[in-house]
Parts: sequence; structure tokens; C-alpha cells
Amino acid sequence: MADFVESREWYLAAYCPEGVPTSDHLKLRTVTLSLSVDSIPVNHLAVETLLLSVDPYLRGRITGTLEGLFISQYQLNQVITAFAVVRVVRSNDSKYSEGDILLNSNASVAEYSIVPSSIITRKIDTSNGISLSDYLGSLGIEVLADPKPGSNVFISAASGAVGMNAGQLAKIRGCRVIGSTGSDDKVKLIKEEFGYDDGFNYNTETDFDAALSKSYFPDGIDVYLDNVGGKMLEAVLNHVNKHARIPLCGMISQYNKVWTEREGVRNLLNMVGKQVRMEGFMLESYWHRFGDFAKDMERYIQEGKVKSKNKINVGIEGFLDSLNSLFSSSNIGKVVVQVKA
Amino acid sequence: MADFVESREWYLAAYCPEGVPTSDHLKLRTVTLSLSVDSIPVNHLAVETLLLSVDPYLRGRITGTLEGLFISQYQLNQVITAFAVVRVVRSNDSKYSEGDILLNSNASVAEYSIVPSSIITRKIDTSNGISLSDYLGSLGIEVLADPKPGSNVFISAASGAVGMNAGQLAKIRGCRVIGSTGSDDKVKLIKEEFGYDDGFNYNTETDFDAALSKSYFPDGIDVYLDNVGGKMLEAVLNHVNKHARIPLCGMISQYNKVWTEREGVRNLLNMVGKQVRMEGFMLESYWHRFGDFAKDMERYIQEGKVKSKNKINVGIEGFLDSLNSLFSSSNIGKVVVQVKA
Ligand SMILES: NC(=O)c1ccc[n+]([C@@H]2O[C@H](COP(=O)([O-])OP(=O)(O)OC[C@H]3O[C@@H](n4cnc5c(N)ncnc54)[C@H](OP(=O)(O)O)[C@@H]3O)[C@@H](O)[C@H]2O)c1
Ligand SMILES: NC(=O)c1ccc[n+]([C@@H]2O[C@H](COP(=O)([O-])OP(=O)(O)OC[C@H]3O[C@@H](n4cnc5c(N)ncnc54)[C@H](OP(=O)(O)O)[C@@H]3O)[C@@H](O)[C@H]2O)c1
Repeated sequence: MADFVESREWYLAAYCPEGVPTSDHLKLRTVTLSLSVDSIPVNHLAVETLLLSVDPYLRGRITGTLEGLFISQYQLNQVITAFAVVRVVRSNDSKYSEGDILLNSNASVAEYSIVPSSIITRKIDTSNGISLSDYLGSLGIEVLADPKPGSNVFISAASGAVGMNAGQLAKIRGCRVIGSTGSDDKVKLIKEEFGYDDGFNYNTETDFDAALSKSYFPDGIDVYLDNVGGKMLEAVLNHVNKHARIPLCGMISQYNKVWTEREGVRNLLNMVGKQVRMEGFMLESYWHRFGDFAKDMERYIQEGKVKSKNKINVGIEGFLDSLNSLFSSSNIGKVVVQVKA
Repeated sequence: MADFVESREWYLAAYCPEGVPTSDHLKLRTVTLSLSVDSIPVNHLAVETLLLSVDPYLRGRITGTLEGLFISQYQLNQVITAFAVVRVVRSNDSKYSEGDILLNSNASVAEYSIVPSSIITRKIDTSNGISLSDYLGSLGIEVLADPKPGSNVFISAASGAVGMNAGQLAKIRGCRVIGSTGSDDKVKLIKEEFGYDDGFNYNTETDFDAALSKSYFPDGIDVYLDNVGGKMLEAVLNHVNKHARIPLCGMISQYNKVWTEREGVRNLLNMVGKQVRMEGFMLESYWHRFGDFAKDMERYIQEGKVKSKNKINVGIEGFLDSLNSLFSSSNIGKVVVQVKA
């Protein structure tokens, strides 16, 4: 490894309060980084980025306001950060050696970076570890809804990173599971690959109310894992059963809007009559369950009970497009940017 | 007691999907009732009504649709029913004798009626027992929010039947309690009589967002007992703390609107970022806690730790006006119609 490297990195040029982020907001630049031994402080590592996890919450880090996901904002002109799998190229921490593959939950969206070793989440065996965050996303359905065999479960963004795992977990628990997603191909996918009982394309079947009540939930909805918010959440509330549980994992349909322009949910009163519980879920509160949950998931994967699908976009220059692909129905499964093989 | 009595009763003349109910919807008529021994079936009682509890949920029984509170609809032309304290005038059930005072949770809104004894909730000592239902309403805050000493608690419709009890319970638990209510007099009342730390008049202080953030909750809201819904709920969600709990007791500001016209809550996304739990509460699920809770409340009342205030309107003819008084800020405390002394 040379002492100096050229490293491309994405930085915040301007906040984006509404709309899809563009190259006005996020820009790519090349910096020169010194990786010489004496430019790495004690308990720091020089790492190269292998995979970047492209997650909807990143949208919340460039709004310039603290609401909604209440997530810390990127700083203007600074490199942005994301969940990533990185490989150590130089180490100034005796616990890590060159070649170690690590999970970094706050990695620079850059080809190379120097990081305090304290921010490393864990060592992993393979670069597949990036999916661990998504298993955890799907943990929401277990801890907040705890669905029982036979429960009628609905999951939106069903073919996405969280949705595909959550749906398969609910199937393992013996539930009847229906998903909504954005294309006919994806509907096919969730049924054939992920074992959903049924699903619909919300871009063509646009009367959600009718779809949910008649076609998909003649017996009502017991659990709804909400990934999209807005009109879909409202439609669900018209068909909930008594004591239904609604883990709120995210509301991607609303992320590109300022809050006063978001779709208001008008029928929360149904939550009173049906004694519904709705609860926001954030990974950060469940790290203590990481270990056990990851073990379960690994077993399910070995047993073929949980499958996953990644959309791997090659090249750090595609990070912005990858991020924006989350806000259309163009991707499939977990979106990842492969920076280095 | 004569064998025949004239009995005035309120019946449903027409459903009222929106707006305040009028004499087009609920009408008074006089019927003649036989109270002769052989007109009372086995295990039935002839009762005279002493007090009628005037509750917001009754509005939900005349909408003509099953949504929102999901409560069974009154039938056209039939006498309407409510929670009441009644006195036995003739008994055909050996467990009850003439003069017994009983709670009936589904009593005819009539001067006299003949009822199956199975619908009687319990015998009570005094006619004050009508407040038991409201103690139970305030149980919502205990079972769903479980507030801790020092918690910042907000209660809307704070001077009402549920609000006054809930606020005092939260004070007993050592919380800081703020209430909103509809007049300056009521604000004074909740502070001076019910021990609220502070409160505001939502009819004059109409920028709820500003009021909640700066004046009343500089440290954010941990628990919100929602009695009103709509804009107030939305404003609260802009100021919730991490892991805040929101028991939804009712949404009276929305009861006179069809659901598509109700105020949409646009900032539910905040529930994700702040991991908020919101849960609908209905008495029916907590009858098993009635006994213990009533005992606690009775002790608090004896110790002067819980006070209550009733607005007693005399005469069954005033039932409709009393019901409608719930939808303005004109009453104080629990609204009761006294049918007979
Ligand atoms: N709370 C947590 O800790 C946590 C952790 C991870 C993720 N999340 C949340 O979970 C949700 C899914 O995230 P993910 O990582 O699994 O992403 P993902 O589902 O892989 O990607 C986002 C997907 O959302 C769908 N979508 C985009 N715009 C939409 C719209 N307007 N209406 C409906 N669907 C739309 C798209 O799929 P289709 O349109 O084809 O369905 C898109 O593929 C997001 O809301 C995210 O913020 C939360
Ligand atoms: N879930 C249950 O089991 C249960 C049991 C009992 C009651 N509840 C609910 O709890 C709430 C309070 O009921 P309650 O029996 O205690 O009645 P209450 O508070 O004694 O009477 C209703 C009060 O609501 C307020 N109000 C009316 N219209 C309003 C509006 N547009 N905006 C804001 N406030 C308005 C009025 O007081 P001010 O305007 O002066 O504040 C009125 O006095 C209701 O939503 C009711 O449905 C639920």
C-alpha cells in the first residue's frame, strides 16, 4: 500500500429539505490521503471501503432539519457517512491487523478513510455481513408485533431490504403474509422467492382500501409493518382488527416532503375503537439483541428458510443514483454500492 | 308503585353522520309501561333511572357507520341507551330487592325500564357510583403510559370527566402535569382544584406548537393522554421525547366529522425517530382491573388526593342538550343528567 492514495468521496454541498436529492446536494470529489504509518493516530485504522449500504434513512441526514427520523445532519462540505464493510489497510490498534474485514456503522462514503477503531461494530467473516443491519431492521416485527401463528400480516415495501426479511420471519412464525411493492416483477419475487402468500403492486392497484379489505384481508389485519407511511398507513387503519399492532419501521413515501406537506392520516380514531398499538422502531434500541438475532438469521439462511436478494451497483461514483433508486420502484432487494471487490 | 307509569324516553329518529346532533336525530316521547308483577319476566327488574352518564362515545352510536370507535349503532325508532344509576322498583330476581341501587352500563335513556338483571354491572352504595366509569377512563393513563415520577405529562380535555381524574392520578405518581382545556375558568380549575402544575386555554392560545414547546414543555413530552385528537395530537408529536407514550383515550374534536373530513396527522414520522408508542384504549378490555382500581380511587378520594366535579343537569328532557354540551367548552367536570332524586 502506497503512503499516499487518491480517494474519491461524496460530500454534502447543500441541504435538501424536499424533493429527490440531486448533484446540487451531494457531490463527488477526489482527495489525497496520507496512509503513512505516522499519519494514523493511536487506536485508529486506515481502511478501504468494500461495500456501502444504501439506506433510506440517509435521506433524513440531508434535510437540514431535525424532525421525522431525528437523525444527526451531515455537515456542509464534509464527507457523508453510511453503514459499510471495510478492510483494514494499516492498523495502529493492536486488536486489528491488515486485511481484517469490519463493519463500520458510520463509515465515510469514500474509497479510503482513517477511522478511530472504537466506531467499528464488529469483525465479520465475509463481506456479506452488510446484510446484518437489515436483519436487524426486520427485528422490528418481532419485538413490536410478536406475530402469532395464523396472524394476518401486511408488509409494505415488501421486496426491499427490511421487507423481504420481515416477511420471511413472519412466515417462519406461521403467519399469513401479504406484501405491497412497486412492480409486478417484485410481486412475483416476494411470492416465489420470499414465500409471501400474496401481494400487490401499489402502483397499479391504487385503491388501497379496496385491495386490503376485499382481496387480501377478508379477515382484517393483525400486524402491519409500516415501511412507507402516508396513504397506505391510512388505508391499513380502515381494516385493522382489534388489538392490531403496527410497528413503524419507516415511511419512505414521505421522506422527500417537508412535514407540513406530508400526507395526513385522518383515521387515527380507529386506533381507539380497535385498541391498536402503533410504535416507532429504531435499531439503536435493539443492539443488545443483535447477537441472538443474527445467530437465528444465520441458521435460517443455512436452512434455506430465509433468502435474500441484493442489487449491487459497482463504483462509488454511483452512490447518489443508488440512493435515489430507493425512492422509485426500480431496484430489487437490498441496494449496495460495491466500491472495491 | 302503580301498575302503569308514564315514562319519557329518548329514541333515535335519524342517524347523524356529521355535525352536532339535533332534535331531528334524537327525540323525546312518552310511553306507558306496565310494571305489574306479571309483566316482569323471570330474572328481570323494573327500574327507575336516577342518573344518566353523558359520555362522548354516545355520539359514536348515532353516526350510522361502524368506524372510529367501532361501537354498536342505536337502532332507528328504538330507545337509546347509556351508562346509568338506577333503582329497583319491582324485582323478579331473588338477588335484587326493591330499593337496590345499581349500575347499568346499558340502561335505557328513559324514566322507567324493564331490564334483564344480567346487564347490571354491580350494586352500589350511593348514586355517586356513576363516577366509577370515569375513574376507569383515567385508568388508560396507568396501564398504557405508566408514568414515572418526574415525567412530563400532557392531558387534553383536562377538566373533563376523564381528564380531571387522569391528571390527579399522574400527580399522585409524582409527574409534572400540564392540561389543555376550553376556557380560562377551567384552566383555573385544573390548577386550583385538581393540582395540575399548569394549563392553557386552547381556544385562546391557538398556536399549540408554540405553546407546547416553549411555554409548557421546555423538556419535551413523555406522556400524552389524548382525549381530543386532530391538531392537538399533531402538535404534541412535534414535541415528544424519545420513547414517549400516547394512550389514545378518545378524539372528541373529530367526533362530529365523517372520517375523510377529519384533521389528518401529518407528522407520524416523528414516532419513528422518537420511538413513540401510541395505543388505543377502551374500558371494555380492563374490567378485570375495575375492582382494584376502584378501591385505590376510593382511598384517594377519602384522603383528599382526588377530587371531582360534576355538572348535574336536572330532567331527562335535557339529555340532548347535555350531550351537545360535551362538544363545546360550556360544561365543567363530569356531565350527568339527574332524572330522579
Ligand atoms: N427503523 C429502523 O431502524 C430501520 C432500519 C432499516 C430501514 N428502515 C426503514 O424501512 C423502510 C425500508 O427500508 P429498506 O432499507 O428496506 O429499503 P428498501 O425497501 O430496500 O428500499 C426502499 C423501497 O421503498 C419503496 N418505495 C420507495 N418510494 C416509495 C413510495 N413513495 N411509496 C411506497 N414505497 C416506496 C421502493 O420499493 P417498491 O416501491 O418497489 O416497493 C424501494 O425499493 C424505509 O422506510 C426505511 O427508512 C428502518
Ligand atoms: N376509551 C375509553 O374507554 C373512554 C372512556 C371515557 C371517555 N373516553 C374519551 O375521553 C374523552 C373525554 O371524555 P369525557 O367523558 O371525560 O368527557 P368530558 O371531557 O367530560 O367532556 C368532553 C370535553 O371535551 C372538550 N371538547 C369538546 N370539543 C372539543 C374540541 N373540538 N377540541 C378540544 N376539546 C373539546 C370539552 O371541554 P373543553 O373544551 O373545555 O376542554 C368537553 O367538556 C373523549 O374523547 C371520550 O370519548 C374514552
